[in-house]
Parts: sequence; structure tokens; C-alpha cells
Amino acid sequence: MSQNKHAIKNGEIIEEANAVVNVTLPPVQSNFSVYEALRVLKRHVVHLDDHTKRLEKSALSIHLPLPKVDWMSEINKLIEKDNIEDASIRILVVGTETPTWFITWTKLLTYPDSYYKEGVDVITYEGERLLPQSKTGNLLINYLSREEAKRNNAFEALLIDRNGQILEGSRSNFYLIMGDTIKTAPDEKVLDGITRISVLRAGRELGYKIDFTSPFPREIWASDAVFISSTSMGAMPIRSVDGKECPFDSEKVAAICSLVRKWELE
Amino acid sequence: MSQNKHAIKNGEIIEEANAVVNVTLPPVQSNFSVYEALRVLKRHVVHLDDHTKRLEKSALSIHLPLPKVDWMSEINKLIEKDNIEDASIRILVVGTETPTWFITWTKLLTYPDSYYKEGVDVITYEGERLLPQSKTGNLLINYLSREEAKRNNAFEALLIDRNGQILEGSRSNFYLIMGDTIKTAPDEKVLDGITRISVLRAGRELGYKIDFTSPFPREIWASDAVFISSTSMGAMPIRSVDGKECPFDSEKVAAICSLVRKWELE
Repeated sequence: MSQNKHAIKNGEIIEEANAVVNVTLPPVQSNFSVYEALRVLKRHVVHLDDHTKRLEKSALSIHLPLPKVDWMSEINKLIEKDNIEDASIRILVVGTETPTWFITWTKLLTYPDSYYKEGVDVITYEGERLLPQSKTGNLLINYLSREEAKRNNAFEALLIDRNGQILEGSRSNFYLIMGDTIKTAPDEKVLDGITRISVLRAGRELGYKIDFTSPFPREIWASDAVFISSTSMGAMPIRSVDGKECPFDSEKVAAICSLVRKWELE
Repeated sequence: MSQNKHAIKNGEIIEEANAVVNVTLPPVQSNFSVYEALRVLKRHVVHLDDHTKRLEKSALSIHLPLPKVDWMSEINKLIEKDNIEDASIRILVVGTETPTWFITWTKLLTYPDSYYKEGVDVITYEGERLLPQSKTGNLLINYLSREEAKRNNAFEALLIDRNGQILEGSRSNFYLIMGDTIKTAPDEKVLDGITRISVLRAGRELGYKIDFTSPFPREIWASDAVFISSTSMGAMPIRSVDGKECPFDSEKVAAICSLVRKWELE
């Protein structure tokens, strides 16, 4: 928290240090909140409509009355105030009696080129998210699985459901390429990723069929490549799972990633 | 949040209004926190040892490094400062790099005598808590199920697991009395309730056998009585489930409740 950075709270520009919530409020204690993580590139807010639509869906799913906000103009206020060029932006709406909302930002989250060329290491982690299609404040499983990944020097954790199938990463969606098919969990079981929409569109443009079936970990070893996607990652190839090297084809993933990144600037 | 009320933050007495956390911190965003809800009766902190032991277990289960705190003396500082006679107390430890901890309080949560004599209405709600034995900040399922109960004019929601069995309430443990047996979910599937320990001890003293099997809702209709327990409720009889009246025997439950309450003052 820098003294010079700002945030927006209920439409008002504040010091970031004042972007706080009181721990005695039941909705704060119970993660009764929804959020979105966006990107600003060259002062342009990427896929804002998709993000605000998903925010509405998330709020509806937990009966949180979303305030009417012109998110574009509010984010632009913050871009102007802090002279932001590129950034990761977070919208948070906490369901207090009159919902309290925040817009905060951090330096744009990017990853070294080597991650895209050489792939990243991931682990598997047993766990299912509550209300997987919603971005709510109920994020402990994401946090714990990611910390477990860190302890194993891995970049991401893949969540394995009660049937032993791979649903999604702690902060990403997951895909398996086999021949002319991209396999990924069905929509209703995972986060409706904004970048996932682009990945599947890119896959189709490149001639892949999409098979909406959650892959089993054992299928990884018979695949051509596996990868994850998120707003900050784009599409990122995986080179090992639970410490074991896996089939790896960074070019197949790069072809998808390059279309995804192109569309962000449109 | 009253101006006159205080809280403790990392050992320092503060205005309750300043008991805040910054929404830009990842552990805050991800409910990486543990808590306890206690009672102060006549300036006496009830079952403090049991609560602090559970706090340690909760912290261990999510790898949260718990700070060494003399909770008794810290709670007593707050009792003195705000001249507290009876209260509900909350300890909260947020897993920031150096964990931040709070002690806050509210008026003692109590319920009308009629709830104990006439019983309360509950609903069933499909859902399982993550890490059921731990009191973490990951509480959205508890909040949502309780809000659904409120919309149905019910007092509590019973969480039904993937097998259709009753685990616990949104903020209580659940029991079914049939003949000489009290049936309740196995320890590893539910919160290790401090009052649950007393309820089972009281049950045994009154001659009941304890069967640690999660009851199915259909068993309610063949039971003698069903009830819930929590720190603030003690043992409270249920009179209806999902709008349907159920077997009700407030005296059986009252016998248990009276022992539970007696031990609180020891």
C-alpha cells in the first residue's frame, strides 16, 4: 500500500490505505462479496463489458444487490488520478446493507517470456470451489491450493473434483489438446473465464473441436499439450504436473495465446 | 459500530471503528483467517482454553502462523476498558505476512425463552463447508444458507451433504434423539463445537448412547426430538423442518441444555 496510490470507494477517490472494511460487519466476516479482476492496457480497459456482465451474474447468484455504477467512468477516474498506463484493476463489492464498492489497482501482472516458451510447473490439489461460476469473496480453497503450489515451487494448482477430474486452476482455466480436440471442463463446473471465451474462440478459428468434459489427470500423459488461461496469463503452456514432465508443445499454445492477446486490444 | 466501543488490534486498544483490514491484501481477499466466538458471562470468559485450542487447530489446518498471545489477559483488557459484564466476543486472526489479530465484542447474543419452550423452525440447505473442523474466514455457505433461512422465516439452516445426510447447521451442531440414543454427525465432518462437547457429555450423563452417524432428513420424522447447539444457543429444540412440524420434546432437550449451561459457569 503506497501513500501515493489511490482507490475509489463508492465513487469517491481515496488514499489506497483507506480502502478498508470493518471486521465487525457480518458480510465482511462471511465473504459476502463479489469481484472482478481486469486489465488496463495503454489506458484502455480490456473486455469491460464481459467483466461487468459477469459481476452482475456473480451478484445475482448470491442475492447481493449490486449498486448501479458506471464502471467505465469510475475506472477512468482512477486512471486519470494515478496516471495509469497499464495496470491490473480489481472491482470489489461487499454486500453490506448498502453495498460498499471499491476499485483498486496494482502494477500490471505479467510473466516472463520463458514461462510461455518453456512452460510452467503445476501441482494437483483436491478441492472444489463453491459456486464455481461466480467470482465471490469465498476464496480460501484458491488461496490454500496456490500456497501449496508455492511450497512445491510450482506456478499453479489444478483443482481435482470428487470424481478425480480436473476442473480448473486456482486462478486459471485448464485445457488439454489431443489431436484436433481441445478438452476442458463444462461451463457450469468452472469459472466463466473472460479469457476462456477467447481461448475457445481462438481454438475454433484454428480448427479445433471443443470437448466440454473435465479431463482426468491420467489423460495428460496421452495428450499433445496442456495449458492454463487467465486474464493476466493469456494462454500458458504446462511442462510438468506434480513434478513429472508432461507432453509439451509450446507452439500450439502460442498460436492460441497470440489470437487471445490480439483481441484484447480491439 | 459505536464510537464508544473499543476493540483490540495486535495488543493495542483501538476504537471499534478502526478495527479494519485493507481490501488490497491477498489474505484479506481470500479469507485466509481463523476466528473464535466466545462468551463473557459476569466478566468470566467461558471455556477459554477450549476456544484457544481450537483456534490453534484451525490455524494449523490452513498453515496460518498463529501469533503467541495471552488471550485471557487481552480479553480482560477489553472487559475493563468497555466495562463489559456479559458479551459475545470474537477473536479474529488474519494471515497477513505478520498476522493481524483483533478482539471485538457485541452485546451478549441471547434468545427468548419461547425458543426453548416452543422450539425453532429450520430449513434444509444443500452444501458442505470447506475444512469443516476449522473455523476459518471461508464462511459464504454459512451466510447464504442462513439468509435463505431468513427468507423462509426460519431460525437456522441445516447443511445437507452430497450423500443427502445432515451434517450441521449454518452456525450450530445438529442432533437427533431416538429412544436411548443421540445421533449426530461424526467429528471429522463437522465443526468441533465447544458446546457440542458439553452436549455429548450431558447426553452421556443422562444415560444416552451416542451414535456418530450423520442422520438423513427422513429419520427426523421417526425420532423423539431433534435439536441444535452452539455457544450462544446452548441446546435448542427444533419444532419444524422445511415448514413441516416434526416430533418435539422440549423437556428432553431442556435437560441437556441445563447441564450445558451449568458447566459454563464452572
